[in-house]
Amino acid sequence: MGFPAQTLYQKTEVDGGTGLFFYLVRMRTFTTEEASVLEAIIFHRRDVRGNRFLPKDVSPDVLDRLLAAALQAPSVGLSQPWEFVMIRDTGVKQQIRECFEEENDRAGELFQGERQEQYRQLKLEGITEAPVNMAVFYTPAGRPVLGQTSMQEAGPYSVVCAIQNLWLMARALNVGVGWVSILQEEKVKTILHAPPQNRLIAYLCIGYVDEFLTTPELEQLGWEKRKEKTAAVFYDRYQSKLPANAEG
Amino acid sequence: MGFPAQTLYQKTEVDGGTGLFFYLVRMRTFTTEEASVLEAIIFHRRDVRGNRFLPKDVSPDVLDRLLAAALQAPSVGLSQPWEFVMIRDTGVKQQIRECFEEENDRAGELFQGERQEQYRQLKLEGITEAPVNMAVFYTPAGRPVLGQTSMQEAGPYSVVCAIQNLWLMARALNVGVGWVSILQEEKVKTILHAPPQNRLIAYLCIGYVDEFLTTPELEQLGWEKRKEKTAAVFYDRYQSKLPANAEG
Repeated sequence: MGFPAQTLYQKTEVDGGTGLFFYLVRMRTFTTEEASVLEAIIFHRRDVRGNRFLPKDVSPDVLDRLLAAALQAPSVGLSQPWEFVMIRDTGVKQQIRECFEEENDRAGELFQGERQEQYRQLKLEGITEAPVNMAVFYTPAGRPVLGQTSMQEAGPYSVVCAIQNLWLMARALNVGVGWVSILQEEKVKTILHAPPQNRLIAYLCIGYVDEFLTTPELEQLGWEKRKEKTAAVFYDRYQSKLPANAEG
Repeated sequence: MGFPAQTLYQKTEVDGGTGLFFYLVRMRTFTTEEASVLEAIIFHRRDVRGNRFLPKDVSPDVLDRLLAAALQAPSVGLSQPWEFVMIRDTGVKQQIRECFEEENDRAGELFQGERQEQYRQLKLEGITEAPVNMAVFYTPAGRPVLGQTSMQEAGPYSVVCAIQNLWLMARALNVGVGWVSILQEEKVKTILHAPPQNRLIAYLCIGYVDEFLTTPELEQLGWEKRKEKTAAVFYDRYQSKLPANAEG
């Protein structure tokens, strides 16, 4: 055919009966190998903490590719309700770090006995170790948004889709990302001079790493186990729970 | 070296001074080409509505790969707080469809004049057209979760990360996904017999399509424009807004 294999073309008659045809580009079709690449990226993505980050800078070109991936995310009514604050300033990082310490001290209290001891030993962020931090905000449109009128949270969820795109893109570029959620939103907003209507969705630490762990650290340390698929999948409705392999 | 090129190995001395070395597998390193595959999948992913779905079944094998991608998503404290209800039952779909119609009639009222007219003409879901529907729920742990103690929403956001993994995996397998958010959560929960503590995060329509549009439909129809990167990216804090290309 002379066309690249990964694109599907449809033979379409130009004019009834003339016998003339043209090939219409229908869509980009991905190959089995390409699907496997995505599977590998998804499988090898990790949440990265401070003990893994290297003091190696991330180039503006790489950061641009991360942002481009984020900006291509789905969003409710194409509202694109995301704002990204890219932080390199060590003073700002230090303030955020203090905010984390305070919240983390409080958080430790919520776990009991041995689990509290284990919690206190965990390294849960890489704010000052990572060369780049990124605060990701949801910014409301201030008017009705198509698709968001029944479920307001579809706005913030769109921002999370952008974060996951960025996270996978980072992994594909061999860059680590850690999501810090042990922060008080209002304090972070004050530090970053965020508009009052904005909502902090995530605070990310971004940088090259010495290692991507083969399995999540919390799994390795025995803090939490992997859920079986059968525990998370239901068919047609909640009553009729079946083992996952009963389907099809 | 005889090792696959995409994995980085580190030469490590076994014992000081013996001169014996072993190669330690450090991590999967992705190539430039592999990163480009992810970029293409992200770029070509679309939200699919009912006028695009084909009446072609999706095999259990493909659905398994979608679920596997979802289950590999990051989650706060490795809590994996997701539950997926996979729906093929036409009766259930019909009930959800009615729920959509009701909410959509109400939603149309929120737009004015021409925009309301345009809204009423949009096809915004593919509930009965898609062979598979999937309701995705957040299920709270009922005890303190590491990383979720300051920002409760990190739980639901984990579920959205799983959805975005699934969405990209679907696109890589040339399967379309549409996210329906014009639904009343409580009604959907009743229809699906969902536990009261669960939160509906998304309702997805899944199936093969006649076409993935080259740009989002709402952009093509002039409903919403693409945001420029400069409008969404800030440096260090909100006060010091600079054009994105001023960085680096």
